[in-house]
Order: sequence, then structure tokens, then C-alpha cells
Amino acid sequence: MSSVRVHITVSADGCVAGPNQSEENPLGEGGGSLHDWAFALRAFREPHGMEGVEVNASNAVVEEALANVGAEIMGRGKFGGGPGPWGDAPWPGWWGEDPPFHMPVFVLTHHERERLTLSDTTFTFVTDGIESALEQARTAAAGKDVTVGGGADVINQYLAAGLVDELELHIVPLVLGGGARLFEGVGPDLTLAQVRAVEAPGVTHLKYRLAPPTRP
Amino acid sequence: MSSVRVHITVSADGCVAGPNQSEENPLGEGGGSLHDWAFALRAFREPHGMEGVEVNASNAVVEEALANVGAEIMGRGKFGGGPGPWGDAPWPGWWGEDPPFHMPVFVLTHHERERLTLSDTTFTFVTDGIESALEQARTAAAGKDVTVGGGADVINQYLAAGLVDELELHIVPLVLGGGARLFEGVGPDLTLAQVRAVEAPGVTHLKYRLAPPTRP
Repeated sequence: MSSVRVHITVSADGCVAGPNQSEENPLGEGGGSLHDWAFALRAFREPHGMEGVEVNASNAVVEEALANVGAEIMGRGKFGGGPGPWGDAPWPGWWGEDPPFHMPVFVLTHHERERLTLSDTTFTFVTDGIESALEQARTAAAGKDVTVGGGADVINQYLAAGLVDELELHIVPLVLGGGARLFEGVGPDLTLAQVRAVEAPGVTHLKYRLAPPTRP
Repeated sequence: MSSVRVHITVSADGCVAGPNQSEENPLGEGGGSLHDWAFALRAFREPHGMEGVEVNASNAVVEEALANVGAEIMGRGKFGGGPGPWGDAPWPGWWGEDPPFHMPVFVLTHHERERLTLSDTTFTFVTDGIESALEQARTAAAGKDVTVGGGADVINQYLAAGLVDELELHIVPLVLGGGARLFEGVGPDLTLAQVRAVEAPGVTHLKYRLAPPTRP
């Protein structure tokens, strides 16, 4: 069966966004620097339609993270738009007319909304929980893997449910002093095996394989 | 001037001990596995007077962590003994008749106690705060470096005060689900630079250099 994978940038103190996230400041205070390591990379810039190239040890890691992915699951925060009902002319999200996903995306939300297609990305809004979203994403992925893209709360729900097979942390030299914490409410009934660590400029890529929780 | 260094094992979720630490369970629930990566190593076993040898990439890391250290600072939890006054026949600590430190150790506590010498380790009990302990440790180290050994609360106090020059995390594939959290109450006014990452069996060694906080 296809794998469920998480690849996420975290600060040294374990957060994927800083304190006080807002529409103006979606990655929270100090969080804007989290992804600096990725922005310059060829592997990141090409799918985002940007020019300029930097090649270092992170390229192969990002290429691997993007390979064989057939669908993405994300929370409403990563898609964009504040809380509550979507309204009559709902916001199309953070990602512009040509979103960088280029695949089916399933957005977890408490509020129903029609499917949205922007270029070659289709956003399907799922209101009946993480297991339904995963089932739909697996079907859409047609044998390829599914990534859970974020934010922390969505990843933590999938981790706590034992539904993630692979977790890669891109650990950056940044102390956010609080914010959206990875692993909040997760464990201890989760078994990790270290797959590999890759040192690269301004980041360390640490990959784990996860075994589902063994519950009596 | 000599450096202040921290080398500490943390779980994937950023804890140096699990929940509910006690005298019976000093590393908390699940925390007993934190240091498995180190116990088998030659570099760890020799200073602890144990036999048997395993050599892998962690050996050089541990040898470097132990080299050029002239004094250690630790909290009362790492030394041992519950809270409150020490009493008339105070406990000599977790570490037995021949403690593995082999150097002057400064124990932060709220309660005065006479200096204690066990083999070639001298424990000095410091009641007037972290800066005093550091000054005394620097003097005792006589030009060598000072390590802050733990627990998390003591390390976090030194980090928050901007007094740590080097921080090495030994990140192990373990989710503790809570406990003594590194970086609690620290940041964001702390600047980290990634020095190196070393992959080894069951652990990744991630070293940072710290710049003191820049406060207006």
C-alpha cells in the first residue's frame, strides 16, 4: 500500500510556526525564517515556477520528498482563510492562481465548501475527519504516496492516530520560543526508527520510519 | 575565555526526561531508553569504569564532548536527593563512591550543604544562583571549558541568560509524550548557527554555536 509521509521544517525548539499566527503573519512571529534553507534550492524553485539555482545536499532530500506523491492533505490554516463558514465568495487561499501542489489536495475543515480547481491543483474540502480525508487522498493518489502537509495540528492528529509511515524533520537553527509545536498531544505509544540524517547548509534532515502504536 | 558547553540527549519531541520523574524513575516514564545509544560506546564506558567496546560514529562525538572540560554545573535533580533541606546525613547522590565526573562539580540548590568529595569528584553546593555557579566553575576549570550537565531546567536557565556558547543535541528516535522540555522558556532572542550534524546508530548529533541575545 502507498505510504503516508510527512516532511516538515521545525525549529530547534520543535515548532513549525512561531507564536501568534495571523493572516498577515501566517508562520507566526519569527517563523518567516523557517524555510530559508529551501527557498534557494533548485528542487524547491522549479515546481514553484521560480528561477535561480542553488545546489547542495538539501536538493536530493527535497527531490525525494516530492517524488512519488499523488495527493496532499492539509489543514485549513495551510490552505488559507480565517475560521468560520466560507461565505459566498470564499478566498481562494494563500497559493495564487497556480498553486505549487500540482495534484489533488484535501483540506480539512469544519465547514463545507465546493471543490476548487486552480490550474492543475484541485482542492477538495473534507468535513468528516482525518480518516475520511486519508481514504479520499489514497484513492486520488492512485497508488502513489500521500503527504500530510501541515499545519502542526493536522500532522499531530495523524501522528497520534498512528497513520503516518514516514516522518522527515528539516531542523533549522532557530529558536522560536513557542508557537505551533510538533508532537503536541502525541505519544508515547509511537515507535520511531531513525532512517538517516543529512547535514546541509542551515538545516539537518532527519528521517524516521514509524510503526503504528501497539495498543492492548 | 573558556567556553560554556551543553551536550544533552533529547527525544524527537524535545524532552530530556519523560513525564513523572521520581527517585525510583529519575529519567521519568519512558526516559530510561534515552541514553541507550551511549551505554555501549567505548568513549562512554571507559570513564565510567565499565568494560566492553562498541565503536561507531558516536565515539568521536562523545570523546570530543568529554575533552577539555574542567568543571560541570548541574541541578539538584541530576545530583540526586529530593527537595527541601539536606538534613543531617544527606544522601551522597545517584553516582556512587566513584562518580563518573572526575572533576569539580557545582550543584545548584536552594539549600546549603558542605562540600562533598567522592574519589576524584568534588561536589560544591551553590545557593546563590547560576551566575555564581558559573564563576566558581570557571575558576575551578582553570582555563578549560565548563559543561552544564542538566537537567532541563538548569540548561534552560543558562540558555535563557545567554550564557551558553555551544549546544549539542543527541536526538534519539523516541517520543516521550511530555516531560522535561529543553528550550522551555527560552528564546526567541537567541541566535543559533549549525556547526555540524553526525548520523550514528540510533542517534543524530546536532551541534550549534550560540551567540548571546542582543537586547536593546
